[in-house]
Amino acid sequence: MKSFEFHIPTKIVFGEDKISLIGSYAQKYGKKLLLVYGKGSIKKNGVYDKVVKSLNDARINFIEHPGVKSNPVLSHVNEGIKLARKEKVEFILAVGGGSVIDESKAIAAGLCYDGDVWDFYNGTAKIKKALPVLTILTIPAAGSEMNGGTVLSNEQTRQKFGFINGHLFPKLSILDPTSTYTIPPDYTAYSAVDAIAHAAEGYFTHDNNWYPVQDKIVEALVKTIMESTEIILKKPDDYYGRATAMWAASLAWNGLTTCGLEGASVPNHMFAHVLGAFYDIAHGAALSIIIPAWMKYKCKDNTERFAAFSENVFGLGGPNPGKSAIEGIEALESWFKKIGSPVSFEDSGIPEGDIEEMSSSVLELADLWGIKEYSKDDVKDILLLCI
Amino acid sequence: MKSFEFHIPTKIVFGEDKISLIGSYAQKYGKKLLLVYGKGSIKKNGVYDKVVKSLNDARINFIEHPGVKSNPVLSHVNEGIKLARKEKVEFILAVGGGSVIDESKAIAAGLCYDGDVWDFYNGTAKIKKALPVLTILTIPAAGSEMNGGTVLSNEQTRQKFGFINGHLFPKLSILDPTSTYTIPPDYTAYSAVDAIAHAAEGYFTHDNNWYPVQDKIVEALVKTIMESTEIILKKPDDYYGRATAMWAASLAWNGLTTCGLEGASVPNHMFAHVLGAFYDIAHGAALSIIIPAWMKYKCKDNTERFAAFSENVFGLGGPNPGKSAIEGIEALESWFKKIGSPVSFEDSGIPEGDIEEMSSSVLELADLWGIKEYSKDDVKDILLLCI
Repeated sequence: MKSFEFHIPTKIVFGEDKISLIGSYAQKYGKKLLLVYGKGSIKKNGVYDKVVKSLNDARINFIEHPGVKSNPVLSHVNEGIKLARKEKVEFILAVGGGSVIDESKAIAAGLCYDGDVWDFYNGTAKIKKALPVLTILTIPAAGSEMNGGTVLSNEQTRQKFGFINGHLFPKLSILDPTSTYTIPPDYTAYSAVDAIAHAAEGYFTHDNNWYPVQDKIVEALVKTIMESTEIILKKPDDYYGRATAMWAASLAWNGLTTCGLEGASVPNHMFAHVLGAFYDIAHGAALSIIIPAWMKYKCKDNTERFAAFSENVFGLGGPNPGKSAIEGIEALESWFKKIGSPVSFEDSGIPEGDIEEMSSSVLELADLWGIKEYSKDDVKDILLLCI
Repeated sequence: MKSFEFHIPTKIVFGEDKISLIGSYAQKYGKKLLLVYGKGSIKKNGVYDKVVKSLNDARINFIEHPGVKSNPVLSHVNEGIKLARKEKVEFILAVGGGSVIDESKAIAAGLCYDGDVWDFYNGTAKIKKALPVLTILTIPAAGSEMNGGTVLSNEQTRQKFGFINGHLFPKLSILDPTSTYTIPPDYTAYSAVDAIAHAAEGYFTHDNNWYPVQDKIVEALVKTIMESTEIILKKPDDYYGRATAMWAASLAWNGLTTCGLEGASVPNHMFAHVLGAFYDIAHGAALSIIIPAWMKYKCKDNTERFAAFSENVFGLGGPNPGKSAIEGIEALESWFKKIGSPVSFEDSGIPEGDIEEMSSSVLELADLWGIKEYSKDDVKDILLLCI
């Protein structure tokens, strides 16, 4: 097991009716905040009104920065930085899903930096300081509410880059499962795919040494996310189902499943980021296309690991690990289809002809993230399996 | 799922050779610390020398407070408070297992309080402030390195009381698995029992609603602790075995396994604390006596839960939950015996005649901890099953 640091300074406040506490929690961080949110779903489901009332009751001033896209973009981050700087906000409140939180982190870091915030994403600068970020999570999936990660797309360069930095952990995240009741079925499915991908990336890429704590927690989370997703697709306001899906998604990407793993990397996210940058499809949808293809490609080199997944998650063990491994991959792919998430380029209308250009972009990201084992042929072969 | 807060401010630094970093980490907290440790095992295994060298290199002054007992006692805590006050230390460094860390937390809180530190343990006062505590863990089991709990024995009243307070989280804990190589087999076994008990208390006492994240993580941790313990009892310097046991023990009692559980309580610890207060036996040994007895007593009321444990941890499922439940309890009891931890009063030389007095003490602790469901007859019956 390799050495690791594990430190999650974020305070999680989980439960029904906790959103209205935001004002009292926020008082500790200043008197004026930037309120960041997306396309307005929080105005339809009542979350916005609760937040505004709580902030007003606590006499906290706020400036709004709405309109975050589901793949957040650099230009909008820069608008947020400009606004926040002009208004002299002291901290940021993100209300939404991973995109809103990721953009808020970018603004929080950008406000403490004189250069271009994209420098942090392309690796030419490192965050030394950031304003405090508080979050109210309304779409569980990304795990950004409980980690130091952020992902951003640059429209000009067609790049979608992400990184992790300790200064970006939210100070506080409020998770109210009832605020997720109105997430539509497609995004409920994408959320599940994303959380499964987060949990399992390290499981399939570590050096195959003995990691029973991490591996068993991954299996537990994947099974749990599948079970809870099936429940909430049938009954969107099932409290236990939503609460379980929400908490499992946070745990899937907060460091718990990967700490100590030698060799772990995130190849599926690498591919999915490129799909997201090229076609602006939902991140979970990109992942459900990539994951089965990547698994089929990698299965031959790492059969025992895929067979373990198959047995421990789907109960598809047996005397032949190769057969068991393939059955597990097919079971996962079938499950993605069942919940309505795409599993091919065809499903999502992605043109086959862009594979060459996508491959170059994947390799560029691989270089940035230090993922060294993929040749251009490997990348193309995996993308061809997505058709 | 009930509402919860989850917040672990402790920074974990995990890995070989991390102990020598303590000086540089400690500089942030002041120039003078109280170095708390036990009966001197850290002088035999080289940990003490590493700590002293690192503190000297970082020019941090320290006053020593050695001699912490394995059930730490109030009188020794008071000596530590007196010494630390006289020497005007700014923070505490605990080097040892749960007892050393628990005593260090008591001293850290006592130094910021004018009254008797026992007030915190008997519930008549609440901690508002404490000096920073850093830890170097050398005996994994208690989880105190990653939680806000502390347990202390009062020799005069024969009480062993514990509680949790957010001010008591260590700021930093260094976990070097190689420092645990020299733990003898009996204490390696007791550590395993304690960690299993921590993981599983909530599992068996929650309201039987749907908690797949928590329950599956518990099953994962219990299986992992059993597997790693078997490895290290055969080969005490197996790095992966020790590292896995160490990390699993921290995760077993840091809030992860119990957050959101309605109705969860810690009856086995309640009994074990009384055994510890009466006979000064190792905490893990007390637990391995109590757990099978408690399980046999409770099994009839909660058969499905015990059957699930039996199936998911020991693979002992079957069509008859009652039979499966008993088989699982017997399997756990056999495993405790196999690793050399006692499973009866007879094994530990505890006299049967004290049951009446022990029962009163258990009920007193039940009252303090708000565990309401045990009558004196229940308590006696469970203790009788320990004979």
